Amino acid sequence: MQLIDGKAISDQVKQEIAAEVEQIKAAGGKIPHLAAILVGHDGGSETYVAHKVKSCEQVGFKSTLIRFEDNATEQQILDKVNELNNDADVDGFIVQLPLPKHINEQKVIEAIDYRKDVDGFHPINVGRMSIGLPCFVSATPAGIMELLKRYNIDTKGKHCVVLGRSNIVGKPVANLMMAKTNPGNATVTICHSYSSDLKEQCLKADIIIAALGVPEFLKGDMVKPGATVIDVGTTRVPSTLTKSGFKLTGDVKFDEVAPKCAFITPVPGGVGPMTIVSLLKNTLLAGKKEIYK
Amino acid sequence: MQLIDGKAISDQVKQEIAAEVEQIKAAGGKIPHLAAILVGHDGGSETYVAHKVKSCEQVGFKSTLIRFEDNATEQQILDKVNELNNDADVDGFIVQLPLPKHINEQKVIEAIDYRKDVDGFHPINVGRMSIGLPCFVSATPAGIMELLKRYNIDTKGKHCVVLGRSNIVGKPVANLMMAKTNPGNATVTICHSYSSDLKEQCLKADIIIAALGVPEFLKGDMVKPGATVIDVGTTRVPSTLTKSGFKLTGDVKFDEVAPKCAFITPVPGGVGPMTIVSLLKNTLLAGKKEIYK
Repeated sequence: MQLIDGKAISDQVKQEIAAEVEQIKAAGGKIPHLAAILVGHDGGSETYVAHKVKSCEQVGFKSTLIRFEDNATEQQILDKVNELNNDADVDGFIVQLPLPKHINEQKVIEAIDYRKDVDGFHPINVGRMSIGLPCFVSATPAGIMELLKRYNIDTKGKHCVVLGRSNIVGKPVANLMMAKTNPGNATVTICHSYSSDLKEQCLKADIIIAALGVPEFLKGDMVKPGATVIDVGTTRVPSTLTKSGFKLTGDVKFDEVAPKCAFITPVPGGVGPMTIVSLLKNTLLAGKKEIYK
Repeated sequence: MQLIDGKAISDQVKQEIAAEVEQIKAAGGKIPHLAAILVGHDGGSETYVAHKVKSCEQVGFKSTLIRFEDNATEQQILDKVNELNNDADVDGFIVQLPLPKHINEQKVIEAIDYRKDVDGFHPINVGRMSIGLPCFVSATPAGIMELLKRYNIDTKGKHCVVLGRSNIVGKPVANLMMAKTNPGNATVTICHSYSSDLKEQCLKADIIIAALGVPEFLKGDMVKPGATVIDVGTTRVPSTLTKSGFKLTGDVKFDEVAPKCAFITPVPGGVGPMTIVSLLKNTLLAGKKEIYK
């Protein structure tokens, strides 16, 4: 069994991005600039955004954090989105989700100029990815593909089972795994809460991507020997063993599943760190106008 | 074995649309108007467009056919697209594919105002379908879902194998089959030319949607008893038995597969007739501004 070290790979990708930013600087080019809108003080969101800002600094990007209180109106957020759309210095920006319930998330996402939508959530980017056109691919699916690529995990013609059909992980990663690319070209099965044959499907899978958000869902008796398992789960489970009072728990019962695997990602330190570097990569692409002019 | 009669269902849907157009007329509303751009004289395209125009007449729509010769320039087509985008009388329009090689199809598709894109090929409509938002769903996948619905074929939790990953059939129908809708909620496997386990997947499938474009690919020994088989193939195979010199051949070896099935679509007379009525339904929705204002 080989552990897929998302932390090490993400550090490597960050170094590559930092080197490219150095070159851009040396050539007198424009430093990529990522802006983030954060509404309220949700603990998870605060942590994620802090990581994103810190990562921007690490690779030499310019970053801007724009804060609103919980009681900000939808119109205030839409106005800020519009302002960032028109700010030539901002190459890409994100609105950290979830938003407070009185704000329509979909409306906000669709208000973002797709050419600055480095989260890849705008329908144009989703559609372009589905068709196989250049676009901003959302961060988690892109991070998973990068891990498979850097570990030279063979996907062509393999059977990949994706657990979960969410818009931000399950559906897009299924799309990427079946695409005419490398990694890609896999036979892809998408299972979800209604799947009656989920265990049977998993037992035949060469690659399992678990993105249900159900802690320790995937057990040892659901995985065939030699499989590759990618764990996207990051549920906060109460714990007396940590200072914070919780621990991040994946969708995979690691102690049972890991011994059977050829490759497996841990939680934390697997897919998680890759998510942020995917966002950085998109921002670099936005800065260089490589996807859209 | 029950034959799924696409011709009968399409006639029924046309009658429903015609009745609604009558109501619109009676209320003094605007008659839906579909325009079609046809470039050149490809035999298949001529036939399809002729059917579309005729179907518009049958349901009481206004229709406009705009012809260009093979040597039309890309700019001429883009100009016409732009003109139709701005023509308030035209509710929806299509550009019949394929286009001559010197014209960039993707560029033409993306030039169409997505609010008039009744073929559902624009990335915004593709993306919105993937996310589960209201949109124009492309005609063939929508037609397949309508057949499943009208025959009350249970899909929830069932294993559906989609053969083929094309942008216009395989990928969108996979998306619809896994969606949180009825029909939908199926476990979906997408197989294609690189799938090493295609036969094994098919043998376990409750529903097979064959969209490879390989005549008689699906044989009797690849289907389990009681399966539902939807045949999307329409390859013109040379034949001495028809006046035209060819016959439409599906992806399914019908004589072998049909006896094993609970439900099966014939070719012709299965999915084919549904494709045009799906286009009519989209045009009706466009005319009523039900998807986009």
